[in-house]
Amino acid sequence: MTSNGEGGEVVAKRRRKGIKELVQVALRGGCLAASATAMAVMLTATEEGVADIYGFKLTLSSNWSFSPSYQYVVGACAGTVLYSLLQLCLGVYRLVTGSPITPSRFQAWLCFTSDQLFCYLMMSAGSAGSGVTNLNKTGIRHTPLPDFCKTLSSFCNHVALSLLLVFLSFIFLASSSFFTVLVLSTP
Amino acid sequence: MTSNGEGGEVVAKRRRKGIKELVQVALRGGCLAASATAMAVMLTATEEGVADIYGFKLTLSSNWSFSPSYQYVVGACAGTVLYSLLQLCLGVYRLVTGSPITPSRFQAWLCFTSDQLFCYLMMSAGSAGSGVTNLNKTGIRHTPLPDFCKTLSSFCNHVALSLLLVFLSFIFLASSSFFTVLVLSTP
Repeated sequence: MTSNGEGGEVVAKRRRKGIKELVQVALRGGCLAASATAMAVMLTATEEGVADIYGFKLTLSSNWSFSPSYQYVVGACAGTVLYSLLQLCLGVYRLVTGSPITPSRFQAWLCFTSDQLFCYLMMSAGSAGSGVTNLNKTGIRHTPLPDFCKTLSSFCNHVALSLLLVFLSFIFLASSSFFTVLVLSTP
Repeated sequence: MTSNGEGGEVVAKRRRKGIKELVQVALRGGCLAASATAMAVMLTATEEGVADIYGFKLTLSSNWSFSPSYQYVVGACAGTVLYSLLQLCLGVYRLVTGSPITPSRFQAWLCFTSDQLFCYLMMSAGSAGSGVTNLNKTGIRHTPLPDFCKTLSSFCNHVALSLLLVFLSFIFLASSSFFTVLVLSTP
């Protein structure tokens, strides 16, 4: 007959583990929502306008697909949506069936490595997109070129919101990968 | 008197540990060299030229400091140079004095977290720089703007080499952080 103290300890330990696993699954859901929204917002970033350069009327029509960096953002988001959907389904299934979220050390390593790859992917896409967005805003200083965003403000706002959500998904992924190292480092 | 088998096992284990620590210190050295060179190459990226747009002679003078993304690359490299210099000195000192490279689990966590931060920083800087560089090469498709790199080829080559080295330093950092998780996950 285990003494009350020990029983209490086991219950507390199990509750802590349950909360930790719930948080891990919630991070996957958050990542799915943020990356799917980021992709939808970027896919709807399109606008036409007229810019004025030294009296020349320059028609500007902008669309996310014009810039390789924005294409990169859409591609990275699509990959992350699929990845976090897979992780979310796995996590919910394991929660429901009561099996551990990371059943073996090999799976923990697999999870850590894939989380890291998608982390780098999203950070990279968000940064490439920000680099180009910044250029849209400040114009190019080699030559006196216009600040596109004055003319195409809706387009630039769409892009800015999308990039914000990309970095949010990155934070969800980085937290997941940190959790996995926690699992790996507990003997 | 420990049996020969056991002695041999201890010696092999110590040798493996020694090699692992040597590799960790070598990764720090590699990262220092790559990020310092990346910074030097970017700092020397400057050129003047004349581009021809519909018969208009447009003087182009380009310098890394014109683009916020390239400034970001220089800043990130400077931070990484200092960080890897610190880690390298610590590593060499511990190797020479025979103490372990990561003396405690707390230091392993500290190392993992800081490696990750610099990893994200370098991936982010490299991507932002690549986004803008790509724009220099392909021109902007909103309006028929020139491909700067035809005129400023030396500048673009400098930038490309620098970005390549930034991603190389990123790989060194990611490997170091992977090593630290290895240390954390061994009981």
